[in-house]
Amino acid sequence: MNSPKNRPQNSWVPGAAGSSYDVDNLPYGVFTRDEEPPRVGVRIGDFVLDVAPVAAGEMLDSAHVFEATSLNPLMGLGRPAWHSVRSWLVSLLTEETERDLVEPNLVPVGDAQLQMPFEVADYVDFYCSLQHATNVGRIFRPDQEALKPNWRYLPVGYHGRAGTVVVSGTPVQRPSGQRVSTGSTTGPTYGSSERLDIEAELGFVVGVSTELGTQVPTSAFADHVFGVTLLNDWSARDIQSWEYVPLGPFLGKSFATTVSGWVTPLEALEAARVELPGQDPEPLHYLKVDEPAGYDVDLEVLLNGDVVSRPPYSAMYWSAAQMLAHLTVNGASLRTGDLFASGTVSGDEPAQRGSFLELSWGGEEPFGDGRTFLRDGDEVTLRASAPGALGGRIALGEVTGRIEPAR
Amino acid sequence: MNSPKNRPQNSWVPGAAGSSYDVDNLPYGVFTRDEEPPRVGVRIGDFVLDVAPVAAGEMLDSAHVFEATSLNPLMGLGRPAWHSVRSWLVSLLTEETERDLVEPNLVPVGDAQLQMPFEVADYVDFYCSLQHATNVGRIFRPDQEALKPNWRYLPVGYHGRAGTVVVSGTPVQRPSGQRVSTGSTTGPTYGSSERLDIEAELGFVVGVSTELGTQVPTSAFADHVFGVTLLNDWSARDIQSWEYVPLGPFLGKSFATTVSGWVTPLEALEAARVELPGQDPEPLHYLKVDEPAGYDVDLEVLLNGDVVSRPPYSAMYWSAAQMLAHLTVNGASLRTGDLFASGTVSGDEPAQRGSFLELSWGGEEPFGDGRTFLRDGDEVTLRASAPGALGGRIALGEVTGRIEPAR
Repeated sequence: MNSPKNRPQNSWVPGAAGSSYDVDNLPYGVFTRDEEPPRVGVRIGDFVLDVAPVAAGEMLDSAHVFEATSLNPLMGLGRPAWHSVRSWLVSLLTEETERDLVEPNLVPVGDAQLQMPFEVADYVDFYCSLQHATNVGRIFRPDQEALKPNWRYLPVGYHGRAGTVVVSGTPVQRPSGQRVSTGSTTGPTYGSSERLDIEAELGFVVGVSTELGTQVPTSAFADHVFGVTLLNDWSARDIQSWEYVPLGPFLGKSFATTVSGWVTPLEALEAARVELPGQDPEPLHYLKVDEPAGYDVDLEVLLNGDVVSRPPYSAMYWSAAQMLAHLTVNGASLRTGDLFASGTVSGDEPAQRGSFLELSWGGEEPFGDGRTFLRDGDEVTLRASAPGALGGRIALGEVTGRIEPAR
Repeated sequence: MNSPKNRPQNSWVPGAAGSSYDVDNLPYGVFTRDEEPPRVGVRIGDFVLDVAPVAAGEMLDSAHVFEATSLNPLMGLGRPAWHSVRSWLVSLLTEETERDLVEPNLVPVGDAQLQMPFEVADYVDFYCSLQHATNVGRIFRPDQEALKPNWRYLPVGYHGRAGTVVVSGTPVQRPSGQRVSTGSTTGPTYGSSERLDIEAELGFVVGVSTELGTQVPTSAFADHVFGVTLLNDWSARDIQSWEYVPLGPFLGKSFATTVSGWVTPLEALEAARVELPGQDPEPLHYLKVDEPAGYDVDLEVLLNGDVVSRPPYSAMYWSAAQMLAHLTVNGASLRTGDLFASGTVSGDEPAQRGSFLELSWGGEEPFGDGRTFLRDGDEVTLRASAPGALGGRIALGEVTGRIEPAR
């Protein structure tokens, strides 16, 4: 296996150099082509590298993980192996001498069908944007303090449904359930959600597990987290607002959560690290971070092809390292495939809000084409990019979903 | 495969006839003995039937599921197969002609180490006892209505952490985290929980999965649910009360949830079915039940060997069939291994309360030996029994756990 290059170098793959999928990105996914079984792929330019045959040909120790139908075996190898594999991929894709070996295993991205990239173990959703939490508090509880007393002391979170995390492109059926119409005085009725919404988030995917009783310090974040995915936490606001007291969101969220087909390795986001915007009061010791813990990732929310919001991840109050430290402070164990998400990303400006609830201020201030919540047939796409190590920007994998009518 | 017997008959297994583990019970578990790999066992009297060699010897179609290291393959077969397997087991264990075949595969229960019986997919915890919800509301929110407006309209629930569901006997480490001491005005501190509690519950284990977008009607409950487990939802009340607004319980619960090593097949509880105590208002259509949906299961909570409470499951307001219909009303899919729990079982009487929070009324009225919450070294055991088809009572598998000091 070749050693990593210190001098950044562009890829020889046609069209990759200088693109948002150059060798400073190299996200992992699981793909199928024709009738072949799913296996691991790496995105380079407009191609998917079919890693398994190359790894087998070079008799890589970890070759078997690329034949798997999910990223979990690769994710379970741990940080030194993640780094070695990435360095090897960079060599393959930058050194002209490797071209004859590699080129036959490049699949045009249009010929590859992306599958769910990893098996989700447990899914946790946090609530880490000060702006989002403040907006939601003002909208849902206008007569109270916007932030609950605990919000600035800990990253508030809850468990979501792992079994309904789906890959980008999966249609989203409008959910039905109990909801109370705005202004109703007659109790709940059954019906399909009238306030179907999105939440633009980042998701963090755990590779390295822990034993029950182990606390993961903020400093060990990168030893456990394999990578990052864009995530749409679809939300039925009318179902949620009726059900969520006192035990939190349940059916308002559990019908679907969409992740990108590409998982961006944490190492690819090294150049995107930034200081947090500031925390007051100072966090308790187990939540302290010693190094820049934020990520300068710019998100975009597109509704039927038009950008309706540009949420900046750099504005997030709580960092991912703090989420993980909090999640495990009680000794809860981690498993390969655990997914934890940031909560809606919202910035200071109205055009930086990551949910329709906020963009339409609870449905009272239509935006865009007179929009409040999602209509059947609407397609929502999340995109994101971040500074890469080669001086340009790397793209995170898109998340898209179209709303199907309730059955 | 033999047909089921209409005339109830006792087992020939020594000591089993008339015991709480006669052939009207036959719970499933996963066990190991010596250095052998884990496999499926069935409890009969004081023995574990090692099913795999018997099934292989008789060339049963489903023989492979008994060689598995979890019940999931058996659970995934579906209700007709569950019934056939059970009928076959009853024949084996009641007909003297089978004795020579079966007896060599009976393992004394003391020689078998029970493992986690199934792989948990998603774990949901409900809040279905009117008495428990009322008590908790009065204790936590004495200035408000005890029940939230939604409580009588839907079974309130939330997702818990599947990865920390452990089998009976697993030690429980006292969790640490942020909590606000009673009466404190200085904000949260970090430390180990001072209000560690139990919740005595039943858990329902899903065998048959569904596709995303499918609603499971109450009438299909027994087509999807394989069996029942006793469950202790360990709860750190001080962590929980600080963190739970507005997104629900998280670290106050996620450190451990203990289930019994034996899973009681739903069919074994047929004789225990009873009418619900009554629901007012009448449930919405998707929550209506046409047949007796309650279970006459009597629970016992033991603290260091002494019974401290006897919660009656027959008092539960919401039924398991309603929990499942509600869980899926938004189209959330089911997976084999999904576990959903009832929430704390509490009856009308003080001695029927299923949590220390209630037994000690928020820590203000010590009970038993002057007890409020759990001390290091305490051992809590849950037991339960129900009417069986042979006229006696069947036992549900015990759940036990000992509190270890915080690290």
